[in-house]
Amino acid sequence: MSEVYASRRTRLRERCNASGSATALISRPANVRYLAGAAPRGAVLLLGRREDLLVCTGPPDDRPSEGRPDEALRVHCLRRPGGDPAVAAADLLVGEGGDSLAVEEHHLTVARHRELRSVAPGLRLADLGGAVEQLRVVKDEEEISCLRIGAEIADQALGELLESILVGRTERHLALELERRLVDHGADGPAFATSVATGPNSGRRGHRPTDRRVEEGDFLSVCLGASYRGYRCEIGRTFVIGTSPADWQIELYDLVFAAQRAGREALAPGAAFRDVDRAARQILDSAGHSEGLQELTGHGVGLEIEEDPQLSPAAMGKLDACVPVTVEPGVHLPGRGGVRIDDTLVVRPEADGGPELLTITTKELLAL
Amino acid sequence: MSEVYASRRTRLRERCNASGSATALISRPANVRYLAGAAPRGAVLLLGRREDLLVCTGPPDDRPSEGRPDEALRVHCLRRPGGDPAVAAADLLVGEGGDSLAVEEHHLTVARHRELRSVAPGLRLADLGGAVEQLRVVKDEEEISCLRIGAEIADQALGELLESILVGRTERHLALELERRLVDHGADGPAFATSVATGPNSGRRGHRPTDRRVEEGDFLSVCLGASYRGYRCEIGRTFVIGTSPADWQIELYDLVFAAQRAGREALAPGAAFRDVDRAARQILDSAGHSEGLQELTGHGVGLEIEEDPQLSPAAMGKLDACVPVTVEPGVHLPGRGGVRIDDTLVVRPEADGGPELLTITTKELLAL
Repeated sequence: MSEVYASRRTRLRERCNASGSATALISRPANVRYLAGAAPRGAVLLLGRREDLLVCTGPPDDRPSEGRPDEALRVHCLRRPGGDPAVAAADLLVGEGGDSLAVEEHHLTVARHRELRSVAPGLRLADLGGAVEQLRVVKDEEEISCLRIGAEIADQALGELLESILVGRTERHLALELERRLVDHGADGPAFATSVATGPNSGRRGHRPTDRRVEEGDFLSVCLGASYRGYRCEIGRTFVIGTSPADWQIELYDLVFAAQRAGREALAPGAAFRDVDRAARQILDSAGHSEGLQELTGHGVGLEIEEDPQLSPAAMGKLDACVPVTVEPGVHLPGRGGVRIDDTLVVRPEADGGPELLTITTKELLAL
Repeated sequence: MSEVYASRRTRLRERCNASGSATALISRPANVRYLAGAAPRGAVLLLGRREDLLVCTGPPDDRPSEGRPDEALRVHCLRRPGGDPAVAAADLLVGEGGDSLAVEEHHLTVARHRELRSVAPGLRLADLGGAVEQLRVVKDEEEISCLRIGAEIADQALGELLESILVGRTERHLALELERRLVDHGADGPAFATSVATGPNSGRRGHRPTDRRVEEGDFLSVCLGASYRGYRCEIGRTFVIGTSPADWQIELYDLVFAAQRAGREALAPGAAFRDVDRAARQILDSAGHSEGLQELTGHGVGLEIEEDPQLSPAAMGKLDACVPVTVEPGVHLPGRGGVRIDDTLVVRPEADGGPELLTITTKELLAL
């Protein structure tokens, strides 16, 4: 694995050099993990002039789910408790004669940035911007394999829930049970706070579970994901409780299903982000559901659950092969509830069979 | 409740005026909640020239655990999805003729700060520093009552765990079960990631649960807390598994217990933070456990699980009445395990009976 991290760092270094900084300080945890193999709490990565250095507040945790620091990296642990690894890194850099440093201005606070300047007044601080986030967009097969395992775990957890009795149980309990099942099946933990929404809550994106109980006739929408070796996937499904869905429920379900399928089918290398969004969105729009539509139809996933790209009307850019994204349109009718259907897929060229569906739980409307 | 939030904002405004800023922008979520009653995701609070304004990315969530925005506040929801409420607030302020604004430089990123400057070039940005964090240190009885309920919930969850069979179960499962029980008893959720540590892991502060199973003869240390209406408490206990603890286990337990008691007894209005720390620390030190001692003996709790004050050798300042703190010394012997004992208490004057213990689970060494 060590070569993977080294080659990521090499690519980043090339970008830095091209923009005039010889060295860079990475502080955003997912970026540190991407480049160093692990991101112990508070750690920063210094791409130095001669060598790269992981600066930690204490000894790294040794659990597979947390990752292990690349053995090619020197690990430096602060001796003084409560010290700031970013400041220590700047100090080390000055000690070896560095004079310019690119930092992540979208992650560093103003106060930390000022502290860096005061510790190393001779150091010219530049902005690294989202350079690491951009490197992270296209995944290698190792990363996709972690996402695939995470998706299998989420499918299993969801499948088991569907076999249990649901009526009378609260959203909060169902969410906790799903999270326990994720861990049972080998997840590091949930990829994000599991959402379970019943009745009038169903179909709301990111709904936080309440004490409302599942009732006959409800829509039940569930969104969960597993984190596996740091990689986070997402699946969302909507079900009907009871034997016979109402006509409006079947209609709404079919509509969201059609939108979600259109979004999935639009995924291809070279497709514009906004065209994928439009493919799904226009189906909901033309059925009169433009009010209250969410801002995104989908987004990238990886070491964070919401990464670039965004699939939205205003997004600029095009998909590449090997980019994992969600496709998750939904409609929520205030007071009645709604439907969300959410898959994680990997963009693949037509020649390789088109988009690879990671979350394979059925999207038929199940009456439970 | 509305007067509570209004009076907190008045106190903050007085501090701002004293340091030359007529207006302030609060972005750190716990600070927003403290002053506004709720902190919807991404929301910021503008203490304006004429009125105070909560600027949100969308309509506030309506759950008691999330808090409700103070009704005396005007709530402004952004129309454009993906917009930054801080930028919108600065824009509004300029519109009404504001010329200076104190911001939380320890929370705002460099990139957001720059965006504020570019949107409102005429606005002089100052640093609010930790002014809100300082206001938050001393709690009112309403806040203490939330902590007390949270502590009861944590005591209940822990008590139930002790009645179940432990041998053979993994740290991760025990942690998940504790978190489920917290929610069963009415917590918003866990106050922090529940720590369960067995055998050689026991006694490590912040140990993250692994797949190690509880064995006969193990020390088992558990640290958990409930969040109740946003307020977070903490309890930690260490147990022995099996009928007869080894001599080294009894000795180590008695030592940490003595240190923890000394720390608790040192809590009083006017006591220096470092003296409380020293009271506990010197007992461990003089028994030869100075190596590897944690940097803190305890810390404040409230809307965040780690707040001011810090009870540590280098901390400056003195305790006030109505400050809730943890006292949590511990010793970890590499390869063997160790002991941590952790309570949440409220500092009270001698005349009121001295420190109020919120977490009342027994600290006798239980053999389970």
